[in-house]
Amino acid sequence: MNGFSLDELVARLGGQVLGDGSTRVTQIATLEAATAAQISFLTNSKYRAQLASSRAGALILSAADADATQQPRIISDNPYAYFAKVSALLNPLPVAPVGIHPAAIVAASAQIDATASIAATAVIAAGAVIGAHSVIGEGCVIGENVVIGSHARLYPRVVVYHHCVLGARLIAHSGVVIGADGFGFAVEGDHWLKIPQIGRVVIGDDVEIGANTTIDRGALADTVIEDDVKLDNQIQIAHNVRIGAHTAIAGCVGIAGSAVIGKYCRIGGSAGILGHLQIADHVEIASFSLIGKSIREAGSYAAIYPFAKAEDWRKNAVHLRHLDSLVDRLKALEKQVELLKGETPCK
Amino acid sequence: MNGFSLDELVARLGGQVLGDGSTRVTQIATLEAATAAQISFLTNSKYRAQLASSRAGALILSAADADATQQPRIISDNPYAYFAKVSALLNPLPVAPVGIHPAAIVAASAQIDATASIAATAVIAAGAVIGAHSVIGEGCVIGENVVIGSHARLYPRVVVYHHCVLGARLIAHSGVVIGADGFGFAVEGDHWLKIPQIGRVVIGDDVEIGANTTIDRGALADTVIEDDVKLDNQIQIAHNVRIGAHTAIAGCVGIAGSAVIGKYCRIGGSAGILGHLQIADHVEIASFSLIGKSIREAGSYAAIYPFAKAEDWRKNAVHLRHLDSLVDRLKALEKQVELLKGETPCK
Amino acid sequence: MNGFSLDELVARLGGQVLGDGSTRVTQIATLEAATAAQISFLTNSKYRAQLASSRAGALILSAADADATQQPRIISDNPYAYFAKVSALLNPLPVAPVGIHPAAIVAASAQIDATASIAATAVIAAGAVIGAHSVIGEGCVIGENVVIGSHARLYPRVVVYHHCVLGARLIAHSGVVIGADGFGFAVEGDHWLKIPQIGRVVIGDDVEIGANTTIDRGALADTVIEDDVKLDNQIQIAHNVRIGAHTAIAGCVGIAGSAVIGKYCRIGGSAGILGHLQIADHVEIASFSLIGKSIREAGSYAAIYPFAKAEDWRKNAVHLRHLDSLVDRLKALEKQVELLKGETPCK
Repeated sequence: MNGFSLDELVARLGGQVLGDGSTRVTQIATLEAATAAQISFLTNSKYRAQLASSRAGALILSAADADATQQPRIISDNPYAYFAKVSALLNPLPVAPVGIHPAAIVAASAQIDATASIAATAVIAAGAVIGAHSVIGEGCVIGENVVIGSHARLYPRVVVYHHCVLGARLIAHSGVVIGADGFGFAVEGDHWLKIPQIGRVVIGDDVEIGANTTIDRGALADTVIEDDVKLDNQIQIAHNVRIGAHTAIAGCVGIAGSAVIGKYCRIGGSAGILGHLQIADHVEIASFSLIGKSIREAGSYAAIYPFAKAEDWRKNAVHLRHLDSLVDRLKALEKQVELLKGETPCK
Repeated sequence: MNGFSLDELVARLGGQVLGDGSTRVTQIATLEAATAAQISFLTNSKYRAQLASSRAGALILSAADADATQQPRIISDNPYAYFAKVSALLNPLPVAPVGIHPAAIVAASAQIDATASIAATAVIAAGAVIGAHSVIGEGCVIGENVVIGSHARLYPRVVVYHHCVLGARLIAHSGVVIGADGFGFAVEGDHWLKIPQIGRVVIGDDVEIGANTTIDRGALADTVIEDDVKLDNQIQIAHNVRIGAHTAIAGCVGIAGSAVIGKYCRIGGSAGILGHLQIADHVEIASFSLIGKSIREAGSYAAIYPFAKAEDWRKNAVHLRHLDSLVDRLKALEKQVELLKGETPCK
Repeated sequence: MNGFSLDELVARLGGQVLGDGSTRVTQIATLEAATAAQISFLTNSKYRAQLASSRAGALILSAADADATQQPRIISDNPYAYFAKVSALLNPLPVAPVGIHPAAIVAASAQIDATASIAATAVIAAGAVIGAHSVIGEGCVIGENVVIGSHARLYPRVVVYHHCVLGARLIAHSGVVIGADGFGFAVEGDHWLKIPQIGRVVIGDDVEIGANTTIDRGALADTVIEDDVKLDNQIQIAHNVRIGAHTAIAGCVGIAGSAVIGKYCRIGGSAGILGHLQIADHVEIASFSLIGKSIREAGSYAAIYPFAKAEDWRKNAVHLRHLDSLVDRLKALEKQVELLKGETPCK
């Protein structure tokens, strides 16, 4: 039968059913969009009022909201995680065909696990190792001696340069480039001299990498992405960076060479971190903020210029070029006022 | 014969010839670079003086500038658009060979229009539909059940994930990724739990997408790009974003999840828009500006830190960390001066 | 025998040996990581103290540091460049097999030098010319009439659009797109009209281009990258830009249309340059800085908002929207204090 009953969901995922446990759901949806055959969820009691108007056939709620509706419902102590699990059950990934597509090009010395899937036009170089149940999409190019763990999924057109090591359950989206040369040059006379980039990229388990993100190989030592790091699209990670476990980074962020990011950090979109800095664990960095010094203390940091109507922005921004002299004028005034106050007034 | 005479151009594109309509032109060029066999154009009367020194064999002018030269010329009420049309006539795109290249890999159940062109190493998955006269370049990967309208042109190495829908006359440049997973995770204990991204990307007609731009699929509902949207290179569009018709976005912009951008907006390079915001129609956003709140009113908005010589910047920028206390000092001074003024001076 | 002796290195690369010249080294490493079979280097006397704890078997030093250790050592007047050369000797690039892989698709009219290497799944269009010893990686797509000089190395999945010209010794990393259409549209009524992009990209000798960087073709004239320019990853270079010789640009930079960058410039990560600007030679631009006017004078320029703890940032940033009125208040105070000072105080 299609979908799952609430009883079946609870049997697999835990939680507690209130109301009719035989209610079947075939898809998950938002409170506004859900229909009678669908299950929805409430992750914040603030929006509890929306339950009344939802046509969802069932709900995932926290204990605090358990009585806010009489619809069939599953009570979970983490409704958002529960929603993710229900969605994964209802929306399994398409199964990739096991084996090597005849239009893939695989070197004789590559070791492809018998349960792996290698798509058409993928190219696997000599000495590469592809783990059990891993999927290498169309047009991927896996360099010499690359090692990819089990259950990894490389979407079409991922490139991994030679000798990089990727962990289990990696998800790499299309256009990702892992292990290209870092940006390293010496000056000799009037021109640049390339510094060979002889380190690798080493990626832990359970990492996800968004479309067109690039992670450069190390100059001498390795670039390291620890377990459970989540990288959004179009991120640039330079050579010899280390990113601590469980850190999540939003799109378009740039991290310069040899920066070391702690564990459990969250970095907003288009932010930047300069080279050779150290960022402590549990640091949050706002979107668009450039971090120019090491951060030793957990907490939230920001550097955003507040936007305004262009004419107001223009009027205000011009003073930023004179802020120092404005402060000097303020100081001079303070001195003068102090002097004036010292003079005996007429009574 | 090579090129077009002015009379031929006017017959096809409208406008009015002044001077010798049999003048032939074979290419279009700037006023400075044009030679006798080339046609040039003036889009702004401010630069009228440049006409005198141009060696262009013919010109495209507005009525206001009709008498500014005696060269053969075409008068148009929109010389810039006229230039675009003449250039398209003189520079037709290379015709892609109709049919499926023997080195393309096309699933048996894919529906490829007989007039479409599928290049070598392109891969088309099961159930995909490719419209009339559409061109799928080398190394493109078109996922399962993707629908692509007529007269679309996908340059080499575009990836479209499963179930996305692309309109007629789409131009997608190399490296574009459409429909990769949005960046969505729930926290469970000490690790991240992936939220399946089950929406699609739905793209209207007449859209152009620049090289290496990424558009993520929706989490639950779809990501939507309306008709005639123009996206430059290396833009990141997150899940569930909607971009209104006729909006143009310059390179390197990042738009966070569920933002809704109006119609006829123009967004400058490297700007950003935070998640869940709403931007009205006819809004202009300056380059490098982060929009952190919804914009309800048409107009121009900016948030750019003005650049300066590094030593001046350093001297001024340091005060930004103390602006609040500077304002406090200003307030204190105002109070003190008010008091001083209240005291009877000696006369 | 494995590696090189110091005497052999000096014979090839110049410099002077102090200590046992028969000492063999097989790899290069940092002072901290080097082992007895490895050579390390000191590029800054400031770190001289680290020599004592290094276990490197040999060192590259400047004359000023020649006596700072008794280990076997090579004295060079440019230790960093010397390190680069030693590393290149010890880490030769994998040799690509000469010839055209049977799974490459090469047009009959393409001219492939007999010493070039064309990898599996690469596609070379009609009229393209590939120079001696050049390597075209897997999945590269080389358009019609493209010319590529000798000793170029295109890593997998580089796309070069038709008619572009690339110089000798080019290194282009995976995902690079050269020659996609610039972002040019005319307004006609309520919609956009595409302006054909009929210029080329012309790239000099000794250029390196990082992963996923995009360089658009010119609108009418060409986009030009001069000799020895070094571009990091994810850079966007718009149509008709010119970048002067020996300029180095870090990751995620955006350069808008028709900007002209001088020679020997250095541009920091995620910086931006607006369209039609001119930047003099020997200009340095800090990371994250938007340049909104031409720079006529060599020197360093910056526009970075200083980061702070989020609560401090919030308290301070709010005043940026009122800076102009703050300056007005300061002026008013100055006038009032001047008046107060003019009044005769009581003595």
